[in-house]
Amino acid sequence: MRVRVGVNGFGTIGKRVADAVAKQPDMELVGVAKTRPSYEARRAMEKGYPLYITGGGNPAEFQDAGLPVAGTIQDLLHSVDIVVDASPDKVGRENRKLYEAAGIHAIFQGGEKADIAEASFNALGNYDACLGKRTLRVVSCNTTGIARAAAVLRQGWGVDHWEVTLIRRAADPAETKKGPINGVMPTFQLPSHHGPDVLTIFPDLHIATLAAVVPTTLMHVHVNHVRLTRAPKDAKEVTDTFRRNPRFRVFAPWEHVDGTPQVMEYARDRGLGFNDMMENVLWDEGFRLDNRDAYFFQAIHQESIVVPENVDAIRASMEMESDGRASIAKTDRAIGLSRA
Amino acid sequence: MRVRVGVNGFGTIGKRVADAVAKQPDMELVGVAKTRPSYEARRAMEKGYPLYITGGGNPAEFQDAGLPVAGTIQDLLHSVDIVVDASPDKVGRENRKLYEAAGIHAIFQGGEKADIAEASFNALGNYDACLGKRTLRVVSCNTTGIARAAAVLRQGWGVDHWEVTLIRRAADPAETKKGPINGVMPTFQLPSHHGPDVLTIFPDLHIATLAAVVPTTLMHVHVNHVRLTRAPKDAKEVTDTFRRNPRFRVFAPWEHVDGTPQVMEYARDRGLGFNDMMENVLWDEGFRLDNRDAYFFQAIHQESIVVPENVDAIRASMEMESDGRASIAKTDRAIGLSRA
Amino acid sequence: MRVRVGVNGFGTIGKRVADAVAKQPDMELVGVAKTRPSYEARRAMEKGYPLYITGGGNPAEFQDAGLPVAGTIQDLLHSVDIVVDASPDKVGRENRKLYEAAGIHAIFQGGEKADIAEASFNALGNYDACLGKRTLRVVSCNTTGIARAAAVLRQGWGVDHWEVTLIRRAADPAETKKGPINGVMPTFQLPSHHGPDVLTIFPDLHIATLAAVVPTTLMHVHVNHVRLTRAPKDAKEVTDTFRRNPRFRVFAPWEHVDGTPQVMEYARDRGLGFNDMMENVLWDEGFRLDNRDAYFFQAIHQESIVVPENVDAIRASMEMESDGRASIAKTDRAIGLSRA
Amino acid sequence: MRVRVGVNGFGTIGKRVADAVAKQPDMELVGVAKTRPSYEARRAMEKGYPLYITGGGNPAEFQDAGLPVAGTIQDLLHSVDIVVDASPDKVGRENRKLYEAAGIHAIFQGGEKADIAEASFNALGNYDACLGKRTLRVVSCNTTGIARAAAVLRQGWGVDHWEVTLIRRAADPAETKKGPINGVMPTFQLPSHHGPDVLTIFPDLHIATLAAVVPTTLMHVHVNHVRLTRAPKDAKEVTDTFRRNPRFRVFAPWEHVDGTPQVMEYARDRGLGFNDMMENVLWDEGFRLDNRDAYFFQAIHQESIVVPENVDAIRASMEMESDGRASIAKTDRAIGLSRA
Repeated sequence: MRVRVGVNGFGTIGKRVADAVAKQPDMELVGVAKTRPSYEARRAMEKGYPLYITGGGNPAEFQDAGLPVAGTIQDLLHSVDIVVDASPDKVGRENRKLYEAAGIHAIFQGGEKADIAEASFNALGNYDACLGKRTLRVVSCNTTGIARAAAVLRQGWGVDHWEVTLIRRAADPAETKKGPINGVMPTFQLPSHHGPDVLTIFPDLHIATLAAVVPTTLMHVHVNHVRLTRAPKDAKEVTDTFRRNPRFRVFAPWEHVDGTPQVMEYARDRGLGFNDMMENVLWDEGFRLDNRDAYFFQAIHQESIVVPENVDAIRASMEMESDGRASIAKTDRAIGLSRA
Repeated sequence: MRVRVGVNGFGTIGKRVADAVAKQPDMELVGVAKTRPSYEARRAMEKGYPLYITGGGNPAEFQDAGLPVAGTIQDLLHSVDIVVDASPDKVGRENRKLYEAAGIHAIFQGGEKADIAEASFNALGNYDACLGKRTLRVVSCNTTGIARAAAVLRQGWGVDHWEVTLIRRAADPAETKKGPINGVMPTFQLPSHHGPDVLTIFPDLHIATLAAVVPTTLMHVHVNHVRLTRAPKDAKEVTDTFRRNPRFRVFAPWEHVDGTPQVMEYARDRGLGFNDMMENVLWDEGFRLDNRDAYFFQAIHQESIVVPENVDAIRASMEMESDGRASIAKTDRAIGLSRA
Repeated sequence: MRVRVGVNGFGTIGKRVADAVAKQPDMELVGVAKTRPSYEARRAMEKGYPLYITGGGNPAEFQDAGLPVAGTIQDLLHSVDIVVDASPDKVGRENRKLYEAAGIHAIFQGGEKADIAEASFNALGNYDACLGKRTLRVVSCNTTGIARAAAVLRQGWGVDHWEVTLIRRAADPAETKKGPINGVMPTFQLPSHHGPDVLTIFPDLHIATLAAVVPTTLMHVHVNHVRLTRAPKDAKEVTDTFRRNPRFRVFAPWEHVDGTPQVMEYARDRGLGFNDMMENVLWDEGFRLDNRDAYFFQAIHQESIVVPENVDAIRASMEMESDGRASIAKTDRAIGLSRA
Repeated sequence: MRVRVGVNGFGTIGKRVADAVAKQPDMELVGVAKTRPSYEARRAMEKGYPLYITGGGNPAEFQDAGLPVAGTIQDLLHSVDIVVDASPDKVGRENRKLYEAAGIHAIFQGGEKADIAEASFNALGNYDACLGKRTLRVVSCNTTGIARAAAVLRQGWGVDHWEVTLIRRAADPAETKKGPINGVMPTFQLPSHHGPDVLTIFPDLHIATLAAVVPTTLMHVHVNHVRLTRAPKDAKEVTDTFRRNPRFRVFAPWEHVDGTPQVMEYARDRGLGFNDMMENVLWDEGFRLDNRDAYFFQAIHQESIVVPENVDAIRASMEMESDGRASIAKTDRAIGLSRA
């Protein structure tokens, strides 16, 4: 019997998680909840996802737009085993009461504080520790990117110390009311909140993160310096290891992928839903090893990187699969994520 | 028997046309030609498109990248009935000699001068006049957008005069060496070349076009004022007519599509190949009628709008279908273009 | 005796008007009012402008920042003959009560509705009609740009009809919370509010304006088509006329000023305060005459174009100078605006 | 007697250096050389700088533009004691032969390789070592920024190790043909060339630099982590030290300067020529001390930061002043650089 899943919120994250859940053989997408009609709501309808009203939305507006509604968020919550909360930052905390009242499991997003859930989650990082938790929080896009890379590097060679500068995209592609249009905004939190957030996955990691916001909508870029515990043989040993692991894509020079615009073009060519890039993106040319010191760039697609993590979090919470690697493989196969 | 098609050039236009041709029931994509290996070349391989080397490309480079090559451009040309030239601007003229030597039909793009082909082509505009021509030129993205709208407005109410300001995107998303980053560059050609180019489709249209380039990569936006010959009953009569015609998408207010970033987000949600938007985009809110004067915005996706036109141009040139509307319907059904 | 002037608001417009007023031989800048300390407030102090607190600002904050305060906005209002209101949009209406209570004249900005003042003002457009009005409203940057050009073209050849597409900058250079970062946002008000606003200066002008917002911070660009009443001899006759008039700058091809970034670079080279460009900017190459039809681009520096207009508005309101052209000459000489 | 200076090249750097030299009491600006007429050339004329033709420029073009020419670059070189080469990257090497032939001293820019001159120069870094050298190279903007900060930190507390991520502006404000418009381009040189370049000033510094290019035109931003040799008492001890040194500007929270757009707005308010920001920009809020580890942001105005360095390089080369700090004070006073 498939686990019944609801998605509360159908924006950037919610619509992607809904698609990913709908593709999983061991899950059933019962419905999605939205506050107002939009082309995204119609798209849900076209895909056959029952539409529920959440956040005080007005049924008459949906009716006027020709969008049939299956019920309220309460109706949805009483028909599912677990809900993925994909509402805007800080709203999740309010919603948690509804989920508790309905007696269901819940997955929250990284925009919420860590204490919203019993544990923070990253599939490569701490799947085991999350098994059976009624509430989980999938860490944010940047934290997910760091946690994945940390899982690989720690396992391979150990990590003594990590420094990251996060060059953050200022807005998502369809967010047209945010800036800056021309300029760089340093994040005056030193270190930035990303470092402490990684500790929710790897409490003993030594990491310092600094951040600045730049006028782009496509991806974040991390500029990393990691001091490893043991020296790899060469850079290739490390990039090959990334290549062998799930959720990493290492570009070779001949592919002519020079920056985030080309990564997104590659994603459009590949043609996953929304043309997403759910893997950490690295480059052979953008990786340098100097004994135990690894310097490398990593690009993170803020819109989609947490999508497979949400699917795995469902499996961990509902104990549908005891082995993290097995869940990852199942998720990625269903989504169509390939390493080619 | 299906018409055998080759695509010379596998960049922005070529890769899209190849996909569209491959989906047509009455066409066979024999192969695509490229000058150097890249992720796009590998994608061709993954899709099963035989890869040919063009433009003096080096076979050893393809071999090093693990990309098997089926032959040279000459090999391809001798295996097809018609070739779509999707090489960079001005290169088409040189290639034409090869096509003539191979004795095949050829479709060129709007970056070439009009005299490269026997006729310029737009499916809604002048399909009939292009039947059986050995060479055709699909007009450029902006001209295609104007020609489509002109076809509808001329048929419905007649057009006395048209003025357009073209707010042009400065570069395609993956073109990272073009600017401006911050500023507006007026096009000092007055009127711009777009107006005269529309006359290759509608020689008697009175049109004046002015243009400026702005720092965006997503879409062009046309700001139109058309004086019609006969007054429509109301704005709705016109927008409804656009809605009924193929290759137009009119957004309603409740869809919350406020500008080109949201149009592109809609396209990502819809999920055509590359998340393209092959229709002219209009808005109910962006259309105003004042007796015989229509003022409206139109957004044009420079990367994809000419794709279905290339398919129809093949049919016209090869006389595979005598009726333009029938070809359009066939093309759009195969591509998955819907008006919803 | 010099007229005593106060400036309420010391942001983008206020700081520029203050400098311009301080340079006028027939005016005395009594002080400027600000709500909170900032580098701009300190700059006021460094320039010797007495600083008053407005808008519920906190004196302690100024003290902590080491900025001595001369008093409250009420103190300022009782020491001046006229106030220039440069507060944010819509706040001016509230402030008007204070000005009335103080029994002084007031100049408002174009962000306020036209009925805030006895008349709307443009120096070349309607100086005479504004003489002696207790309250005036300097029309907004785009309207000022159109009104200036209209004044010249109407006087020279008459204007039958005018169409403008306004390509609007999305934010000022230091406004970092506004977008879009990548995209074009059509203004769904058709015609846009700019046309009606020009009618507050020229009630009988036939004008249609359409607008779209683009990701740049530097300048607006107007794309104009004007049908003149009488045909000029040639384009040069018109551009020469613009050159002879104050507050126009026509760039010649050899100057290599190709777009708004180069206009702003020119302004930096020239070195007026803040590197402003207070003139309407035109180009010889960007002007085309076709019998009675003039097509031309015009760039408008949104931050500074209204600054000299505010100075002239003071003179008109206080009847310090009965001839508009004489006031313009006086203002421009003091500011350092030259036509070279 | 004043030292006679020529400036070869009148673009971004040349025009600024010319102004700075013209203001020095102990220097005479004999003339500037340019290849073609432009508004910048006319501006030279308006400022009274004799104009010479360089780089194969055509005298007829200058004549047509109404710009009188004083002679050729050879004429200029024979009238000066020292020339500042501000020609485009790589052209300086060719020019060096002319300077040698004329028997004069020469200052080159950081776009040239280090071996173009007897020594690389930074005023706070190695003034003494450059005294009397016939040829000097002022290191590039980013290197200058790092070298200044290194000079202060080394003197105060010693530097064990430095890591910098350079977030680089993609183009200067008036360079409209460069991108990216939307995206981040990692610099695949690891470490980037900036680190080795700093070693031309401080050969024993341990420094690693990584870089990425982002779509902004205003300033570079450095994200620094420095491990000091001795722990400062607190962060304030370090920021106060920066404040006391020339060519640093540390912004306090109450100034509301949140990123590079506001820094540039501050520069416009201050009103140095071209509204330049010749100091390293730091923030109290953007500085954190953790025992011996200092984390801080630094913004670098690529157009102007090397300008005062060129002036000091002239003094060092010509031995006009034996003490670097004295030269700096003289330069800054003449330019109007203040620490307020």
